Amino acid sequence: MRSIKVGLIGFGTVGSGVVKIIRQNGDVIKERLGTDLELKKIVDLDITTPRPVKVEKSILSTNIDDIMEDPEIDIVIELIGGIEPAKTFILKSLEKGKHVVTANKALLAHHGNEIFEAAAKNGVDVGFEASVGGGIPLIRSIREGLVAEDIQVIYGILNGTANYILTRMTTDGASFSEALKEAQEKGYAEADPTLDIEGHDTAHKLAIMCALSFGGKIEFDKVHIEGITDIDQKDIQFASEFGYKIKLLAIGAETNGKIDMRVHPTMIPKDHVLSSVDGAYNAVFINGNAVGNIMLYGLGAGMMPTGSAVISDIVDMGRDILHGVNNRVPPLSFVDSSKNSVTYKPISEIKTRYYFRFEALDRPGVLSKISGILGKYNISISAVIQKGRQVAGSVPIVMLTHTAVEKNVRSALEEIDKLDVVKAPSKLIRIENGEAE
Amino acid sequence: MRSIKVGLIGFGTVGSGVVKIIRQNGDVIKERLGTDLELKKIVDLDITTPRPVKVEKSILSTNIDDIMEDPEIDIVIELIGGIEPAKTFILKSLEKGKHVVTANKALLAHHGNEIFEAAAKNGVDVGFEASVGGGIPLIRSIREGLVAEDIQVIYGILNGTANYILTRMTTDGASFSEALKEAQEKGYAEADPTLDIEGHDTAHKLAIMCALSFGGKIEFDKVHIEGITDIDQKDIQFASEFGYKIKLLAIGAETNGKIDMRVHPTMIPKDHVLSSVDGAYNAVFINGNAVGNIMLYGLGAGMMPTGSAVISDIVDMGRDILHGVNNRVPPLSFVDSSKNSVTYKPISEIKTRYYFRFEALDRPGVLSKISGILGKYNISISAVIQKGRQVAGSVPIVMLTHTAVEKNVRSALEEIDKLDVVKAPSKLIRIENGEAE
Repeated sequence: MRSIKVGLIGFGTVGSGVVKIIRQNGDVIKERLGTDLELKKIVDLDITTPRPVKVEKSILSTNIDDIMEDPEIDIVIELIGGIEPAKTFILKSLEKGKHVVTANKALLAHHGNEIFEAAAKNGVDVGFEASVGGGIPLIRSIREGLVAEDIQVIYGILNGTANYILTRMTTDGASFSEALKEAQEKGYAEADPTLDIEGHDTAHKLAIMCALSFGGKIEFDKVHIEGITDIDQKDIQFASEFGYKIKLLAIGAETNGKIDMRVHPTMIPKDHVLSSVDGAYNAVFINGNAVGNIMLYGLGAGMMPTGSAVISDIVDMGRDILHGVNNRVPPLSFVDSSKNSVTYKPISEIKTRYYFRFEALDRPGVLSKISGILGKYNISISAVIQKGRQVAGSVPIVMLTHTAVEKNVRSALEEIDKLDVVKAPSKLIRIENGEAE
Repeated sequence: MRSIKVGLIGFGTVGSGVVKIIRQNGDVIKERLGTDLELKKIVDLDITTPRPVKVEKSILSTNIDDIMEDPEIDIVIELIGGIEPAKTFILKSLEKGKHVVTANKALLAHHGNEIFEAAAKNGVDVGFEASVGGGIPLIRSIREGLVAEDIQVIYGILNGTANYILTRMTTDGASFSEALKEAQEKGYAEADPTLDIEGHDTAHKLAIMCALSFGGKIEFDKVHIEGITDIDQKDIQFASEFGYKIKLLAIGAETNGKIDMRVHPTMIPKDHVLSSVDGAYNAVFINGNAVGNIMLYGLGAGMMPTGSAVISDIVDMGRDILHGVNNRVPPLSFVDSSKNSVTYKPISEIKTRYYFRFEALDRPGVLSKISGILGKYNISISAVIQKGRQVAGSVPIVMLTHTAVEKNVRSALEEIDKLDVVKAPSKLIRIENGEAE
């Protein structure tokens, strides 16, 4: 039987993982695929720095044409990340009739629709299991496992760096900056951690998952994004007093035909199964109208888990190649995603429960003033903690609300922040119970 | 485009779920499959009793030939359960060139190898996603998502009835019989709960998952099986004092090329992610050498979750039919499972940690006698709880051990049970840390 020949662009962390797994688990992969997976060429700008895995010099090249112009290469693996030249390389591979496997969530979030169109036009496939949730078989599970579902809601912990930081803040009382520094020392966080801690990486993944779950194109611009840089140790502790943990959640939900996509720090009940997802682990919790609640959990990053997901796509394509088929499964789960009419709900329209922290002067009548404004905007309070008198300065007043409308909440906080007894901008954290509405 | 035509054998709980989902989610299924899923015929011995979903009389029949002899029916769904006539119906369908989808784990555990052979011979496929873990996309995840993995260990909570009973005993202090009665009242447990509480249902599922994970045929007879009927409220409480929960675990592990498959009550650390799997939920925790730890969680039974898994297989086959391919993915993950040489480890050879509960007279020297015998068999103790003096009768002595060999443990307990100071058969519960060795 013919072998499946692949070319790898990008010999970095994940690229090394892919090579290592092919070497290490080649026998068992062959027993499952039925033929050899042959790594024919690796292209990278740097082919001299030692990698965690050794390869013969003959398969290394700095010339992209060694992959593009080789008609024997069936599948191109793009693992350089970023928008360019990754996008150009992928589009060129597709034009050349080569299947593409990528872990590039930023690229897919911004240009996925164009890439999938090009793939369809050229009768080839694009695999992206590795782009969300590392080694967790997430894309495949939503697209094929939950194919019979009307998906109601997705909650995702999709960034290991952010989750590691929040876990350290929760379990060890670390400050945000201490936890970030530690994450960087341990290699979980990049030198520039912006994409992770500001929520953009999570948002890239959410946009992809929502297209898969609800239909429609990938619409990254519709995702509301807030990161975790404002989370204070105080908030972690108050959340805990109320029975909650704070997680950076990706939330995608469909209510009355409208989809809302948002990434923000979220309080979830301590006894919810997502609360047990700690450290660098990722998880996605999905509610479908038939299957009920499902959770998929695992390492969302790292050379070996992400490499494993890359190879799962290669084997899938290999099977298609051996059977002479292509475009068997629609990449975004729906046969014609572009036809699917989807409307999005702006953040101002969402309804949820809220945690507020006000920093107010410790004077009689302050609570009455604040709650008066909340009442005016139809926001009803379910719990209050007012901490004891400080020697000087302000005291925190912490409240949980019943379900309220976001735009009312924003108007109320704006008004509250203008009170002369309020000494710092008020803090808001949204609460989710982790169930479909 | 041609529609995909299915015939359903067995209009019981899961069968009704399948029909309900096709009716309810037909539009979204069509948007994903690209054509209609047409339920052409339902065969059941009883076609008069009302079901949770209404169907036109014209598609109901009591005659199996209405499915078997209809050349238009592409896929037969077998949901009658049990060995016969399910087996005959499945083999006949395969001979007729029809694909088969089944949720019948007992049948697959005992006769799966024969069924998969017949499918291969006839160039058709057998889907069984619904046979393990209900709506959790488990089979697909192991077979396709983890295709690059050398799987080290699987831990599964695979029976909702048993897990519900243990959860009630743990969180509410219920006795085994109270919890069982409640499970029956709530409809979780059958009138005859033997298969669930004695571990056989879990063992059926484990045998299937081990073949998928480690290669080789399905070898149900090699599974060591113990149920939960001997679990006492006392054991639940002692486990908790030591920081553990008791779960009925399915364990499949490969060490030095030998596989052990066992189902028994198991103590797992409270902070392990499997410990949060409570009530009727199922979960499978898998460790692969590249991906690390993965957990898949959801409802392991019920008309809608199981129905959803059935339809995921139908859509998969529908895609193959539309593309004119078959046998694209080996049913048990390995291309030639029968060639795969697999050796099994008997339970006597396993090494693990143990919990013992001895019921002994409250006399000086008892602890020394017991620990002397354990020492003789190379079993070293890591913790002891000896409860205070009773007014009369025996007192429990509870111990945790370091890693020991099962056959030594059994010999030691046999000798201990013969001591005149020991008043009841000693209790043993195995401990797992939930990690690969």
